[in-house]
Amino acid sequence: MNIAFLGLGNMGAPIARNLLRAHHALTVWNRSPQKARPLIEAGAQGAPSPRAAAARCDIVCTMLADDTALEEILEGPEGLLAGLAAGALHIGFSTISVAAAERVARRHTEREQRYLSAPVFGRPEAAEAAKLFVVAGGEHRDVERARTLLEAIGQRVFHVGETPSAANLVKLCGNFMILSAIEALAEAMALAQKGGVDPRQLVEVLTGSLFDSIVYRGYGAALAEKRFRPAGFAAPLGLKDMRQVGQAAEALRVPMPLLNVLRDHLLQTIGAEGEDIDWSGIGRTIARNAGL
Amino acid sequence: MNIAFLGLGNMGAPIARNLLRAHHALTVWNRSPQKARPLIEAGAQGAPSPRAAAARCDIVCTMLADDTALEEILEGPEGLLAGLAAGALHIGFSTISVAAAERVARRHTEREQRYLSAPVFGRPEAAEAAKLFVVAGGEHRDVERARTLLEAIGQRVFHVGETPSAANLVKLCGNFMILSAIEALAEAMALAQKGGVDPRQLVEVLTGSLFDSIVYRGYGAALAEKRFRPAGFAAPLGLKDMRQVGQAAEALRVPMPLLNVLRDHLLQTIGAEGEDIDWSGIGRTIARNAGL
Amino acid sequence: MNIAFLGLGNMGAPIARNLLRAHHALTVWNRSPQKARPLIEAGAQGAPSPRAAAARCDIVCTMLADDTALEEILEGPEGLLAGLAAGALHIGFSTISVAAAERVARRHTEREQRYLSAPVFGRPEAAEAAKLFVVAGGEHRDVERARTLLEAIGQRVFHVGETPSAANLVKLCGNFMILSAIEALAEAMALAQKGGVDPRQLVEVLTGSLFDSIVYRGYGAALAEKRFRPAGFAAPLGLKDMRQVGQAAEALRVPMPLLNVLRDHLLQTIGAEGEDIDWSGIGRTIARNAGL
Amino acid sequence: MNIAFLGLGNMGAPIARNLLRAHHALTVWNRSPQKARPLIEAGAQGAPSPRAAAARCDIVCTMLADDTALEEILEGPEGLLAGLAAGALHIGFSTISVAAAERVARRHTEREQRYLSAPVFGRPEAAEAAKLFVVAGGEHRDVERARTLLEAIGQRVFHVGETPSAANLVKLCGNFMILSAIEALAEAMALAQKGGVDPRQLVEVLTGSLFDSIVYRGYGAALAEKRFRPAGFAAPLGLKDMRQVGQAAEALRVPMPLLNVLRDHLLQTIGAEGEDIDWSGIGRTIARNAGL
Repeated sequence: MNIAFLGLGNMGAPIARNLLRAHHALTVWNRSPQKARPLIEAGAQGAPSPRAAAARCDIVCTMLADDTALEEILEGPEGLLAGLAAGALHIGFSTISVAAAERVARRHTEREQRYLSAPVFGRPEAAEAAKLFVVAGGEHRDVERARTLLEAIGQRVFHVGETPSAANLVKLCGNFMILSAIEALAEAMALAQKGGVDPRQLVEVLTGSLFDSIVYRGYGAALAEKRFRPAGFAAPLGLKDMRQVGQAAEALRVPMPLLNVLRDHLLQTIGAEGEDIDWSGIGRTIARNAGL
Repeated sequence: MNIAFLGLGNMGAPIARNLLRAHHALTVWNRSPQKARPLIEAGAQGAPSPRAAAARCDIVCTMLADDTALEEILEGPEGLLAGLAAGALHIGFSTISVAAAERVARRHTEREQRYLSAPVFGRPEAAEAAKLFVVAGGEHRDVERARTLLEAIGQRVFHVGETPSAANLVKLCGNFMILSAIEALAEAMALAQKGGVDPRQLVEVLTGSLFDSIVYRGYGAALAEKRFRPAGFAAPLGLKDMRQVGQAAEALRVPMPLLNVLRDHLLQTIGAEGEDIDWSGIGRTIARNAGL
Repeated sequence: MNIAFLGLGNMGAPIARNLLRAHHALTVWNRSPQKARPLIEAGAQGAPSPRAAAARCDIVCTMLADDTALEEILEGPEGLLAGLAAGALHIGFSTISVAAAERVARRHTEREQRYLSAPVFGRPEAAEAAKLFVVAGGEHRDVERARTLLEAIGQRVFHVGETPSAANLVKLCGNFMILSAIEALAEAMALAQKGGVDPRQLVEVLTGSLFDSIVYRGYGAALAEKRFRPAGFAAPLGLKDMRQVGQAAEALRVPMPLLNVLRDHLLQTIGAEGEDIDWSGIGRTIARNAGL
Repeated sequence: MNIAFLGLGNMGAPIARNLLRAHHALTVWNRSPQKARPLIEAGAQGAPSPRAAAARCDIVCTMLADDTALEEILEGPEGLLAGLAAGALHIGFSTISVAAAERVARRHTEREQRYLSAPVFGRPEAAEAAKLFVVAGGEHRDVERARTLLEAIGQRVFHVGETPSAANLVKLCGNFMILSAIEALAEAMALAQKGGVDPRQLVEVLTGSLFDSIVYRGYGAALAEKRFRPAGFAAPLGLKDMRQVGQAAEALRVPMPLLNVLRDHLLQTIGAEGEDIDWSGIGRTIARNAGL
């Protein structure tokens, strides 16, 4: 397959590299060109614009920071939309809002281009190890067309529905679930600590019994050791995601009181600690509010 | 070891049976005597009162419904306190409040009796299979003295501190964590469903990736299938536990906004559904509030 | 009328004095007798016990700190219950819980004594000026019997129902309303201030337009000037009242999410500031959480 | 003064009429021209576009539904910006977001036009009676220039700061305060009612003592009588305002837990009741969640 990859940041670069390793012909583009260099040295071709990259390929992958960044490379005379052939496939890996995914899907449909929304769970380390979890939204035939590619970058592919934006909704739900677990851990740890129990022991009991999963082990340790910097996932990005969950919830008329707690704790944390703290830094806020 | 066991309900009976199986000499007592019969037939001795049971043994185990039930069998002329020899050990398995655990500990100390608080995680099935998780609070020597016994009934023993009530605090934190996970699942599922995603698919993605643990698998399935009766753990018991978490939080000056959400959802659920619904029935309330 | 008055603290003493001024024959009792002295000098008679005070009178008024204090002077060989004649009337001014009011009512009914629950709104200054608002719960004939007395101490009497505890519920609702107004003011002021608006100007707009009432004027000024000490109504007393609202809400299965916010802010405030801060000190917590 | 008035809806029309009554020379424009007719018959001049209206006048007033509606009549070849002379003054009465007010202010500054933000408190009846409360943000000289005009339409003018958007922030805070009062009333009334107290009696006590103000009287009666239709202020408009408060709070890093409660109750209410219910309809949701 001829594949283009646009957006070579912390997540995009290792994913693109795994596509190269899987012997796909790869064309790459990034806004700041120096990020494309290592991939070009490893065998990829460079392209001068999203349009040029898209024009050469059957499949174009994108991994951008947010709604705006994605929509900017899509539109305009040098954009992806202008380059992509009818029938060619765009696979969007970015964590974007449900509304943006709907807009992107509409734009492709107008031009008879195919679109698969495929946000991923996993940190840069997981991307490098091709251990991502891929959540795919789109038509069955597009998932099948992308399957080899998706399996080259992740450990498992979930197909959650025919509507592309369904995948973005699931991805946002997943991030909401993770931060909810952090919140619960942090509240319990504050209570335990003020009651004379070492928070590490609480985490050991929880992860050694009913909560034996990655999220609780990883964030349990980070919270117990107050390890909030450098950020694995910065609080402002978490706030952006929770805002997008909130926008979906408002549009769909779904009260989410737990989401509100998370947003307020992120706000307080960013206000007190700055933009560079990990989103699990809400644990510091929760501890401080408890007088710890 | 000569062991007495007081309180032979859903949880107490299978635990006592496992002690018999492990070839301990067992004396049993229960308020309504017919519940003691199967154990007596299996080789245990009956006793006419907590005092009589305690008088014969080195170790007395209790598994009662709540603070009041435990304190009733403790006090009075026929109570456990009156029968237990100085130096003998009381192991309390009940999920009671931190304040009650402190009162019990004080009563034993006054009489030079030993007390180990040892609440457990696990449903009756886990008790039968000797797969409970035991959270022990008390002095090191008492944990050691009880170790063979505890290992006969559970898969793992966690020693969380020298103060008996520390174990009760950890147990309450655990129940808070479980209900928090249910809350997060239910909010995410309501959002997903209104956004056109099958809740079962959301659960499959979550448990197939970052939330691969017992709590999420079990409650995820129950919520997706709206299986809330018969109750595995009834909502009023959950409310009692959350009230006890709240009492500890108030005494220790720890704000717990997530706890508040849980309590309000339990109240609304019990009000609308009655006392016999499972505590995961908060999922029905959350769905209803979202117009589902 | 022969009236006894038990409990001569900040609120009780000025109320009792107004009864004297209204030319009632008054017998007084207080746990620490020196507090009774000024009233005795002004013409009241002293009594050695609640029983003795009650035995002489048709009507006994009580103004105690909380449930426990009231129930202690009620029971026992020297208690109010033992002294009060059948058909005589107890008027309870204390802010106690709904459950305690129900217990007190039951105790009187058993002895064919009459009981009127009559908690009041107002600070000590209002008590002195006979400007209290009295909320009365009890039978119509008892309200009529007490009317002259109640009009001698307050500016208005509201009869809210035949059940004495109804008055206590209304009183608790009133305190919940006041703290809710403080919460709303404090959140709005934090937002305004961070947005560059002087909080005093916000308060001026609000109280000069739609919120022209005592609560908003008084607490608006206190919040704007950060005047939280000395406490007019200390945060721990506010927490006690909010706990009692919460107990009623739990018993009646009423979710009250705003109440939860208030309780958490009181907890954080008491934890950070100590027990001597006014309950409006939640404004300091709200400002701090906003980074002010 | 030559005054133009753009936007002649429920609020705009009575305000414009009061300007005519005060003998100002008035030019009017509205998107659907028939709404301008009664004013033209009463002596105003019609204009074919915002630009044409603005070109004739020293002062242009606008009263539009929301950010988008205002920004649409501002921009473009036939827009207000194109017509307004340098030094002429735009008075914006609309309840718009802080961010939109900042954008509008910037656009005027670029063209050396003056801008005064002047949102109002009051319903259409108050507008007709010239009893609005005007919150003005802008330079002192612009407030003075507008004073006669503002006094012709309202009972009081509050000048809250030199930045126009400060007035919008204060207006949003005011709406947040009103809905907070409704929330508190509705929670207290649900508790009282389940406890056997007639909600009307609770409202009578509150408004007869500490909460003797317009908001509590008006909404207290509406809640007690369950009078939620026709909407005086529809729930979706309330939700829009609370969203704008939330956006300001997020931008300024201010946690507002009470705001969250309000938003969730609006969502649930609109979802269950439709778009035509009054924002005080959150009372119905609160009662329903309590099982009433």
